[in-house]
Amino acid sequence: MKIAVCQYNPIIGDLKGNKDKILNGYNLAVNNKADLVVLPELFLCGYPPLDLVEKKEFRSAVKLAAEEIASDTIEVGLLFGSITETFEDNIGTNVYNSALLCFDGKIQFVQHKTLIPNYDVFDEVRYFEPAKNISVFEFKGKKLGISICEDIWNDADYWKHLRYPVDPIKKLYDDGAEILINISASPYAYGKRIERFKMLSKLTSDDKLPLVYACGVGAQTELIFDGASMCFDKDGQLCILGKKYEEDYFVFDTNKNYESIKNVEGNFAEEVTAALILGLRDYARKTGFKQALIGLSGGIDSAIVAYLAVKAFGKENVHVVMMPSKYSSEGSIEDSEKLIENLGISSDKISIQEVVDKTLEMLSESFYGKEEDVTEENLQSRVRGMYLMALSNKHGYLLCTTGNKSEIATGYATLYGDMCGALAVIGDVYKTQIYQIAQYINKEKEIIPSEIIEKAPSAELRPNQTDQDSLPPYDLLDSILKMYLEEQKEYSEIAKKIGNESLVKKVLRLVDINEFKRKQAAPVLRVSTKAFGYGRRFPIIQGWSFLR
Amino acid sequence: MKIAVCQYNPIIGDLKGNKDKILNGYNLAVNNKADLVVLPELFLCGYPPLDLVEKKEFRSAVKLAAEEIASDTIEVGLLFGSITETFEDNIGTNVYNSALLCFDGKIQFVQHKTLIPNYDVFDEVRYFEPAKNISVFEFKGKKLGISICEDIWNDADYWKHLRYPVDPIKKLYDDGAEILINISASPYAYGKRIERFKMLSKLTSDDKLPLVYACGVGAQTELIFDGASMCFDKDGQLCILGKKYEEDYFVFDTNKNYESIKNVEGNFAEEVTAALILGLRDYARKTGFKQALIGLSGGIDSAIVAYLAVKAFGKENVHVVMMPSKYSSEGSIEDSEKLIENLGISSDKISIQEVVDKTLEMLSESFYGKEEDVTEENLQSRVRGMYLMALSNKHGYLLCTTGNKSEIATGYATLYGDMCGALAVIGDVYKTQIYQIAQYINKEKEIIPSEIIEKAPSAELRPNQTDQDSLPPYDLLDSILKMYLEEQKEYSEIAKKIGNESLVKKVLRLVDINEFKRKQAAPVLRVSTKAFGYGRRFPIIQGWSFLR
Repeated sequence: MKIAVCQYNPIIGDLKGNKDKILNGYNLAVNNKADLVVLPELFLCGYPPLDLVEKKEFRSAVKLAAEEIASDTIEVGLLFGSITETFEDNIGTNVYNSALLCFDGKIQFVQHKTLIPNYDVFDEVRYFEPAKNISVFEFKGKKLGISICEDIWNDADYWKHLRYPVDPIKKLYDDGAEILINISASPYAYGKRIERFKMLSKLTSDDKLPLVYACGVGAQTELIFDGASMCFDKDGQLCILGKKYEEDYFVFDTNKNYESIKNVEGNFAEEVTAALILGLRDYARKTGFKQALIGLSGGIDSAIVAYLAVKAFGKENVHVVMMPSKYSSEGSIEDSEKLIENLGISSDKISIQEVVDKTLEMLSESFYGKEEDVTEENLQSRVRGMYLMALSNKHGYLLCTTGNKSEIATGYATLYGDMCGALAVIGDVYKTQIYQIAQYINKEKEIIPSEIIEKAPSAELRPNQTDQDSLPPYDLLDSILKMYLEEQKEYSEIAKKIGNESLVKKVLRLVDINEFKRKQAAPVLRVSTKAFGYGRRFPIIQGWSFLR
Repeated sequence: MKIAVCQYNPIIGDLKGNKDKILNGYNLAVNNKADLVVLPELFLCGYPPLDLVEKKEFRSAVKLAAEEIASDTIEVGLLFGSITETFEDNIGTNVYNSALLCFDGKIQFVQHKTLIPNYDVFDEVRYFEPAKNISVFEFKGKKLGISICEDIWNDADYWKHLRYPVDPIKKLYDDGAEILINISASPYAYGKRIERFKMLSKLTSDDKLPLVYACGVGAQTELIFDGASMCFDKDGQLCILGKKYEEDYFVFDTNKNYESIKNVEGNFAEEVTAALILGLRDYARKTGFKQALIGLSGGIDSAIVAYLAVKAFGKENVHVVMMPSKYSSEGSIEDSEKLIENLGISSDKISIQEVVDKTLEMLSESFYGKEEDVTEENLQSRVRGMYLMALSNKHGYLLCTTGNKSEIATGYATLYGDMCGALAVIGDVYKTQIYQIAQYINKEKEIIPSEIIEKAPSAELRPNQTDQDSLPPYDLLDSILKMYLEEQKEYSEIAKKIGNESLVKKVLRLVDINEFKRKQAAPVLRVSTKAFGYGRRFPIIQGWSFLR
C-alpha cells in the first residue's frame, strides 16, 4: 500500500486554513497515486485546542468542515485527526479525539482515541471521552490498525510502569491488523525523538507489522512539534524519517524495501536551537508579528536570543536596545556592539540612569531612612522593561524575554522588569546549556563574541555584581535543578548525590518559593520533559516548601 | 449518633499545622462526647495540593502524618481526608483521594473517591485513580456511607446531564447505608451554596437518609472555600449550617430534632464581599504578608479594593498611593483623600509626570516621526506600576491589583502597569457588580465617597478620556461578557439576545485576543462559576477568534 504522509503545520482553530492544507495534501497524493493519505492528530482543529473544545459553535464548525473535506474525496483514502461528538449514552463530555477515514465522498470509518493523556502538558480528560472500542478497518484489501498518539504509548513490553490498564495496539494486533497507522501530535523535548524511535522500533519488530507514525509540526504557544514522522517496516527498521522542524510530504510504500535509518536525533545544541527558532517563528507568524525586539545586556542570554530571533525573523526584522546604567561595564556595550555587527541588526542605545535617578528622587520621601536593597536593583530592571514595552507598543515589535531556566527556576529575575515580553524564548534552557548553544552557533565562525561567552555572568544591577554572589556556580546549580525539575528527584536523593545539604535545601527552596513569579511569566518554549508553565502546576500558597 | 464537624482552614502542604488542627478538633470532640469527628476532603495535605502529589517525599510524609494521627485515636471515630497510595495493580498513578476512618489507634477503613472531577479548576485525574469499590462501614452499630465531594454530585434524579456513568451514593444506599457522610472541598462561586443546598436536600429526602456534608473553609491562592458545612435530616431538612467564611466546629446529633434552616446564601454583594475579604486575608496570612498596598486612582475599583484590604488587614496595615499625572482630574485626588479619611489609612502622593516626561525624552529619538498612541497611555500606567512595585519591595507590602473582570476580559488594562501585583482581588467581579458592592458597603454610612461612585469611569490616561470611549456601556458590556464567560453561550445566541451583531462580535473578539495578557496576570480570586485563571484554558495562538 502506498501511504502519503502530510506532515503539515496547523493553526489552532483556523478551520479554513487547516482544511485547505488537508485538501491540498490529499490532491497532491492523489496525483502521486497514493492509496491512502494521512494527516496528524486533531489536524483539522489544531492541537491542543484546549477549551475551544467546550464551545458548541466551534464543534459544529469542525463537524461541518470535516464533512466538507470528506465530500471532496474519491476512492483514495484520507485519514486525518479531528474532534467528533456522539451522544450514544449522553454521559460525560460526549466529545472524542478521533481519526476520520474518508473516501468516496464520505466519512467511512471513525476511530476514537482510547488512551486519554492527562499529565504534564496534557489535559485531555478535560475534553475527551475514551473510545469504547478499537477495531481494524479493511481498506483496499488490507486491515488497517488505526490509533491516535497516546494509544501507542502503553506497550507492556517496553514500559516498566503502565499508565493505563488497556493496550489498544495489542487489540488491533489481535484483530489481525496488517498495517499500523498512528496519527500523532507529540510535543518535542530533547531526547524524545530517540525514545519514540526505540519504542516504535521495538513495537513493530515484536508485532511484525509496518507502522506509519504521522506527526504534526510547528509551534503552538509553548509547545513545539518537531515533525520527524516515522515509517517502520515489519522488522522494526526505520524506513522514512520526516523532516525535522518543517513541513514535509512523502509517500511510504509498504511493499518496498528501504535502507534502515539509525540516526534520528542530533546533539542537544543542534536540536534545541532548531526547535527554538521554530517556536519563535511560529509564535510570531501565528500571532501576526513581523519584527522582534530584544534588550541586549552584553551577557550571553540576550546574545543567544538575538541570534535565534535573526534566524526566526531575518536580520532586517530584528531590533535590539542597549540600556546601560551606571553599573554597566564598558565591556557590556562594546561586546553588544560587536554582536550587533556580527548579526547585522539594527540597534538603539538608551541610558536608563536618568529615569532611574528621577524615579528614586520621586520616591525619596517614601524611602526615607531605608537602606538600599533589592528594590533599587529591581527598579533598574523595571525601567528597562518599561523602555522595551514602549518600543514594542510604538513599533509593533514582538518583545522576546531573555531569562534562562536557571534564572526562572531560582527567581533570579525581576517581575515586570527583565521578565517583560511575549515569549520566554530560552526559558526552558539552563545556563550551562546556553553555553553549549553558543559553541554550536560559533562552530564555523564567531558570531557570539568570545568576550560575551567568557565573561562572568552578571545582572550588573550593583557595583561589581556577579550572578555567583547570589547563586551557586551554574554547573552545580544546573545539576541540582535538573534532578529536581526534569528527573523529579527529591531532596534526600539530591542531597545525597550533591553532598551539600544546605546548598540543596537553599536551591530547592528558591524553586518552591518563586512560583508566584512564574505565575506571571511569559509562556516558555518547551524543549525539556518538564518546562515551567502549563505542564508544571504548583500552588503559590503552600507550606510544604516553606517548612523545608 | 453524635457527629462533630471540624470546619477548619488548612494550608496546602503544611502537614504539621494541618495535623495539629485535626488532633485539636478530635480532642475537643472527645471532650464533647461525640461518637465521630469529621474533617474535610484532603484536609491533611490541604486542597488542592496540585503537583505536590507527584512528589514521593510529600506522599511519604503525608502517610506518616496520617499514621501518627491514627495512633492518637481512642474509641471515638476520626474521619479526615488525605491522599493515600496503593500498589495493587501498579497501573496509573497509584494515588487516591481518600477518606480515612481511624479509631482505637489505627486507620480502620479507607474509602477512596470514586468520581474524579476534571473540569474547570479541577485537575484531579492528573493525580488520582478512581476508587474501584465503594462500600458502607459499620461503626458503633450504624452503617456509614462515606463519600468524597464529587461522589455526591452525580445524582440522576437531580441532574439533566450526568458527568459520570456511576453513582456512588446510590451504591451506598443500596448497601444499606444509614447515615451519609460526605467530606468536601467545594470552591465558592456566587450561587453555589443554594445549589448545594437544593441538590443535597433532594438527595437526602429521596433516600430518607441523614447527611453530614463537611466542608473546608479558607482561601488557597485563587480558590475561596466558604465553609457553610451542612447537616440534613432524613427528610431533606437542613438542620445545621456551618459558619460562612470562617472556621467552625459543631456537633450534629442524628437522633435530635432541629429547626429547618431555609436561608443559606445572602445577596451577591454581601456574599462576594465576605468571600473576597477571606481570599485576600488568607493569601496574605499564608504567604506571610502583614501589610497591603494599593494604588488609588480616584475611581471605584481601587476604592473597593482599599476597603476590602482594610477589612482583611486592619486599617493600620493598609497603605495607599495616589499617583497623579497631567491628565488626572482635580477630583481624583480630592475623592481619594476623602476615601483615605473614611477608611483611616495612610497614604502617599507621588506624581508620575516627571518620570513619564523624562522617559519620553529618553525615547524621543526612537519615537521620532511617530504619532502619540496607546504607547504613551501604557507608559503612564507602567510608571505607576514601577512606583508601586518599588514601594512593595522596599516596605514588604502586598500589592493588590485593582482591575475588575470587565477590564480583564476586554484587555482594558496595561500589562506590567495596572496589572502589577500579587493578587487580582476583584478580577472576577464585573464593573456593574462593583457598583453593587459599593452600595452594600455604604448601606449604613458613606464609606466609599458618592463622588467616586457617581463619576464616569476613566483611566485618565489622555485628556477627557472615559472608559466608554473604548468600551460599550458597562451594563451592556457586562451582560455580553456574562453570557459569554459564565453561561458559556456563544456568538449566535448572544447576538440574538443583544440584537447588535457587530458589537457582540467586537466584545467577543476582545475577550479572545487578550489571552496573552491574562497569561501574565496575577491570580484572580474566584467568585463566579468561570473565573479567569486556572479554570479557563484557551490557547494564546488560535485562529478561531481571529477569524470571527
